[in-house]
Amino acid sequence: MIGLSSYAVVMESLPSYAEEQHPSSLMTNCRSKNQESTGSPRPRCVGGFVLVHAGAGYHSESKAKEYKHVCKRACQKAVEQLRAGAPAVEAVTAALVELEDSPFTNAGMGSNLNLSGEIECDASIMDGKSLHFGAVGAISGIKNPVLVANCLLNEAQKGKLSAGRIPPCFLVGRGAHDWAVSHGIPPCPSEKMATRFSLSAYRRNKRKMELAEGTDAGVNQKKKRRQSRENENGSGCLDTVGAVVVDLDGNVAAAVSSGGLAMKHPGRVGQAAHYGCGCWAENARNANPYSTAVSTSGCGEHLIRTMLARECSAAMQSEDAHQALLEAMQNKFISSPFLASEDRVLGGVIVLRCCRCVEAQPSPNIQGILVEFLWSHTTESMCVGYMSAQDSKAKTHISRLPPGTVPGQSLAIEGGVCRLMGVVE
Amino acid sequence: MIGLSSYAVVMESLPSYAEEQHPSSLMTNCRSKNQESTGSPRPRCVGGFVLVHAGAGYHSESKAKEYKHVCKRACQKAVEQLRAGAPAVEAVTAALVELEDSPFTNAGMGSNLNLSGEIECDASIMDGKSLHFGAVGAISGIKNPVLVANCLLNEAQKGKLSAGRIPPCFLVGRGAHDWAVSHGIPPCPSEKMATRFSLSAYRRNKRKMELAEGTDAGVNQKKKRRQSRENENGSGCLDTVGAVVVDLDGNVAAAVSSGGLAMKHPGRVGQAAHYGCGCWAENARNANPYSTAVSTSGCGEHLIRTMLARECSAAMQSEDAHQALLEAMQNKFISSPFLASEDRVLGGVIVLRCCRCVEAQPSPNIQGILVEFLWSHTTESMCVGYMSAQDSKAKTHISRLPPGTVPGQSLAIEGGVCRLMGVVE
Repeated sequence: MIGLSSYAVVMESLPSYAEEQHPSSLMTNCRSKNQESTGSPRPRCVGGFVLVHAGAGYHSESKAKEYKHVCKRACQKAVEQLRAGAPAVEAVTAALVELEDSPFTNAGMGSNLNLSGEIECDASIMDGKSLHFGAVGAISGIKNPVLVANCLLNEAQKGKLSAGRIPPCFLVGRGAHDWAVSHGIPPCPSEKMATRFSLSAYRRNKRKMELAEGTDAGVNQKKKRRQSRENENGSGCLDTVGAVVVDLDGNVAAAVSSGGLAMKHPGRVGQAAHYGCGCWAENARNANPYSTAVSTSGCGEHLIRTMLARECSAAMQSEDAHQALLEAMQNKFISSPFLASEDRVLGGVIVLRCCRCVEAQPSPNIQGILVEFLWSHTTESMCVGYMSAQDSKAKTHISRLPPGTVPGQSLAIEGGVCRLMGVVE
Repeated sequence: MIGLSSYAVVMESLPSYAEEQHPSSLMTNCRSKNQESTGSPRPRCVGGFVLVHAGAGYHSESKAKEYKHVCKRACQKAVEQLRAGAPAVEAVTAALVELEDSPFTNAGMGSNLNLSGEIECDASIMDGKSLHFGAVGAISGIKNPVLVANCLLNEAQKGKLSAGRIPPCFLVGRGAHDWAVSHGIPPCPSEKMATRFSLSAYRRNKRKMELAEGTDAGVNQKKKRRQSRENENGSGCLDTVGAVVVDLDGNVAAAVSSGGLAMKHPGRVGQAAHYGCGCWAENARNANPYSTAVSTSGCGEHLIRTMLARECSAAMQSEDAHQALLEAMQNKFISSPFLASEDRVLGGVIVLRCCRCVEAQPSPNIQGILVEFLWSHTTESMCVGYMSAQDSKAKTHISRLPPGTVPGQSLAIEGGVCRLMGVVE
């Protein structure tokens, strides 16, 4: 078991953030074309909130600006969708496309190269309203894997295929690529997805591996091969990306996308394609008072074996969101019996939960959604961004473990609260 | 939501089975080479119990004999391993190899062909002691996918690879195939894995699809394509295979293997490769008084989205195993909010749970394990076999929904109890 030698909690409560919202501007949005064009008794409100991450791992000060910038753009893209009346699942897809398109993140363009020098990506998406899920694993030659996951989700919602066949929710490899192209998603030559940075990282990792395996030769190769080499790939480039969104109808969605671990074996699929592990979204219903959405980042195998996205989502039904996430990260991740043999448990999550506000409504036809949003990580740092549809720009932040704490054994947790308001006519 | 128009419960309690055990013969086994060769203070007892399934789906009377026969042989193989002192995880692998080798099951040899006429298999295995998991998805050209899953599990337990790389727990496609071959698992030409039966089923399904899509032309193709065609592929060939084992040390293991749905899209991965969905095994610890092992069968997408293996395992910590499984199948599967849009929810599970017996021990150095084993399915039938290491041969059974009940909306549940005894010296 991992010794919790140091345990860091950094709760940056942001009550002032709630005050910064401008419900009046949102109310203007809410009287938009969507409501005017439909004659339904309960018109949809436009607006919502997005929280994105550009990965739990290590973000050097020198690259901090780039990471923050891409998070900002991703939030902006999601908010554009929300303002146009798109549901949460489309807004979360828009955020992911922006994150994948950045050459600095380990997803889509600029993904880590595998052992053979190829790019194979994982991505998944979940819609909290329909509870449908779409995922692709080890897919090559597609610039935006999240678009394939989203397309799988949409196709599955249409019902059965010819001859009563059940549509797939998870496709991998060549088959996933071909399915994507046949559904109108353009192929992209793999060499265009590699960047100067990812290629030089590949050559550096390759040398490191050869060196590690070379020193083993002649001694006790098997034994040495298995030894953990501290600081090598420790909490380095694990910068999977993801986002969680709630729209003003209270629907949540979550998505995640990753190029996977550097120097992974071809065909390796990580948490980003794994149900319950990479992302989770579940609208409130019956016994669950809160809608919840979660996206994870970090070491795929650790996140798979602890099913961290679903565990965090389930924990979020407790009264105190901060305490619930703290306990989930501690008991279901760092100290999980599923990872008892691991010396450093590396990962991070972004979480949002929301419920309808019943108190302090200015009028019966104005409905409010209270959004609590948090992030937590055991890696050295995690880059996040967040924005509501009434904000003029996104806020970004690189969360870091306090100095002196040990990655994989300690955690940081931060978050805030935001109130969304909309008119029901 | 699915209407529970008819609800069938067939509990075949087998108290007589417990009486049929011969603890004396097992006690002889327990004084075997394993105990004599080691000087450990608590020698391992050899023996245990295995429960296998050859799929939830539809088993015609004419083929019943074949299915029973392969279940019998699979039990025998697992018991041979248990008698030789192998742990649960090796015994469950041996059972799966036998099930995969049968041309009658939809796993390994004789697997369903996909849309392109190729065989792509999924398999996974979980060890309740280490909680490690290994899985392969959409793998071609390997006769026994479970051997690759088992090899992944074993390799992961050895710790990190060179340069601190984390070993994979899930590989797919060509990468999975190449990894298998590089780890000593021989390739097998795909054409040798197809059988006369699987090829003729492919041709039949192809015609059915062409017919279904042909009749659509000119009418309202999109709409028609999506209509569910009753009885076509309804609860037909979903005959994934699996097994659950407990050894006399109380360690549990579970495994599952599948050729997937007939006419699936290339690259489609079903529940058999999905963590928490195809199989689950978890030794007793702390708050969990029971060791549990589960293996599932049926429509992969339904089993993924309900995470049925893990749900059934969690449910098994309740006092009444039969009631707990009944409620899990009803609330977490047939009536699951995750499958609210499905008209027929098709699947089956085999489950075992066990705990050390404290009562009625003939002497302090004889330890007993009480094993409760159950199966439940919403498909028309499910073929199972079971055997303890002190039995001379396996028992097999084809469980069927009672006449007049509707597959996908009703369920059958059956099971038994068995007491294993061993000497601790």
